[in-house]
Amino acid sequence: MTLLEATVARIPEPDLCAAREVRSRLDEKTKPPGSLGRLEELACALAAIRGTPDLDPPLKAIVVMAGDHGVAAEGVSAFPQAVTAQMVLNFARSGAAINVLSRQVGARVVVVDMGVSSPIPEDPAIRSMRVRAGTNNITLGPAMSRDEAIRALEAGISVAEELISSGVGLLGLGEMGIANSTSASALAAAFTGASPEEVTGRGTGIDDSQLRHKVDIVRRALEVNPPDPVDPLATLAGLGGLEIAGLAGVALCSAACRIPVLLDGFIATAAALAAARIAPRAAHAFIASHLSVEVGHRCLLDALGKTPLLALDLRLGEGSGAALAMHLVDASIHILREMATFASAGVSGA
Amino acid sequence: MTLLEATVARIPEPDLCAAREVRSRLDEKTKPPGSLGRLEELACALAAIRGTPDLDPPLKAIVVMAGDHGVAAEGVSAFPQAVTAQMVLNFARSGAAINVLSRQVGARVVVVDMGVSSPIPEDPAIRSMRVRAGTNNITLGPAMSRDEAIRALEAGISVAEELISSGVGLLGLGEMGIANSTSASALAAAFTGASPEEVTGRGTGIDDSQLRHKVDIVRRALEVNPPDPVDPLATLAGLGGLEIAGLAGVALCSAACRIPVLLDGFIATAAALAAARIAPRAAHAFIASHLSVEVGHRCLLDALGKTPLLALDLRLGEGSGAALAMHLVDASIHILREMATFASAGVSGA
Repeated sequence: MTLLEATVARIPEPDLCAAREVRSRLDEKTKPPGSLGRLEELACALAAIRGTPDLDPPLKAIVVMAGDHGVAAEGVSAFPQAVTAQMVLNFARSGAAINVLSRQVGARVVVVDMGVSSPIPEDPAIRSMRVRAGTNNITLGPAMSRDEAIRALEAGISVAEELISSGVGLLGLGEMGIANSTSASALAAAFTGASPEEVTGRGTGIDDSQLRHKVDIVRRALEVNPPDPVDPLATLAGLGGLEIAGLAGVALCSAACRIPVLLDGFIATAAALAAARIAPRAAHAFIASHLSVEVGHRCLLDALGKTPLLALDLRLGEGSGAALAMHLVDASIHILREMATFASAGVSGA
Repeated sequence: MTLLEATVARIPEPDLCAAREVRSRLDEKTKPPGSLGRLEELACALAAIRGTPDLDPPLKAIVVMAGDHGVAAEGVSAFPQAVTAQMVLNFARSGAAINVLSRQVGARVVVVDMGVSSPIPEDPAIRSMRVRAGTNNITLGPAMSRDEAIRALEAGISVAEELISSGVGLLGLGEMGIANSTSASALAAAFTGASPEEVTGRGTGIDDSQLRHKVDIVRRALEVNPPDPVDPLATLAGLGGLEIAGLAGVALCSAACRIPVLLDGFIATAAALAAARIAPRAAHAFIASHLSVEVGHRCLLDALGKTPLLALDLRLGEGSGAALAMHLVDASIHILREMATFASAGVSGA
């Protein structure tokens, strides 16, 4: 059995018993039942994922995977391809938004080169898991081979396994890759059946005519790489990208290890949907951190059956929304652990 | 000039120049312009309130004001009136949700007895600013006299002034008072012109027939205390409550001192709207933390021209949403202060 197959095989069902126990503990707390809304639902979901009602504030990490996309040659992004490598160095030097937001919640940022097109200087803060130097142009053929897609997924599984072994109990998905919203739009259309128009947005900021061009590119990518509904791995290999496949691996391993995974924006959620198509049982471990401005994001979240916690008009990626939502995860656990009960505080019930 | 008049007189205009400077600094950061959405808007708004683009993570406090309501005798709440005093003690002993959520963001909780009906034991963690032992039943006459309303407002001003003098740079509004959503609904109808049905909700959790009864009570309160559009202070005195007037005072003083105020749910936002009717210039210092489940909340936020940061289906009050939103305030300031620029990080622009 391959690492991928073994990981998929050990993904458990959610523990509904643990979730019910958390619900009953929350109803004893000094507040009207349910009055903390989504925070209470979140605590229940965490218990179902972790398999226990005894939740502790977790050690946290954001895995930011970077990869380049051959389709950038079609002029689908507002930024040049060199920015992928430049931003990887910015992550390593703690200058990016994800570094700032992770520091605020005490989360470690793990930067992984899954396949940036230009070589990245060796740096202890950058983990190299390069599968290849960027994907092929998906309007001309598959982004990568099936074997490369498996290697990228398994790289993600290894990164997650190592973090979880070292005690990490909450993972966030982050990404960087110029043109990766084009790849994510193609995956969104392939996995949900939506039209390219419905799932193609402005990414880092393109104008109306560039958007029409991007929709055409997504349509061509789908014609060249027609999705096979019974072979999600082939769809992922066909439409890319390397960082998306890597994050799908992170998501699968987390689910297998009963560790909650915070999704981020459009691209990270496309990775999560790829993971859920490969292993539908994995999806219960995913928590939607926010609703992005990117037009196709809701479609992906709907396909996963997830309601986002935040709606802050973000459209950055990098795991920025996941980092912000980590505060809410901690809040829900603190509420469960620290609030007084009606009995302990001598407060009359309803 | 009274303390209230002097406070209103010194409320400044927003500093749009500081906001523009923050916008321009954010556009230099290594991210597509505007891609951090509401966080970027928040940083600009904070600069306009503070009167400077040089923002520091602020010392924080949540002011939780408690008061009882004579209208509780009409059976409008799911909980008995004794719970107000019991919860004040729970706040003092750090057992309530607001204590947990404030601790998480490093905010001090300042508990103020504005007029609980039963005497509260002396406790160093409870500040006594009792104006009277609860309000009168607003279906029978005014909640309090005009003079008592001014005293409650000025008590709030004093509390805020003291906190701000001690270095607090971000305030959150919290409240506790059995039946205070009835008072807030009456104020919402009075200040916005909405019907009692549009602004009366289930509070801590009442059923359909209790809700119909509560709507009738709000209608009677408005008949007995008809709002005078040119005298918001009379409306506040007529419909109560003591903690609502106190929080309106906190909001006015904060605005006068250029300190941002995080609103909370329906009742705290009713207090903020009362403050804005007394001094319209104050509203620019208010930040809407969340959208409550309580049906009239959006109507109040619309009247203030505010868009909430969070929508987590909260309906607890106490300042719980304000405490959660403090993390976002800090996030926006960290982004402004700590992110690299395109130039410093050697990243190519769009």
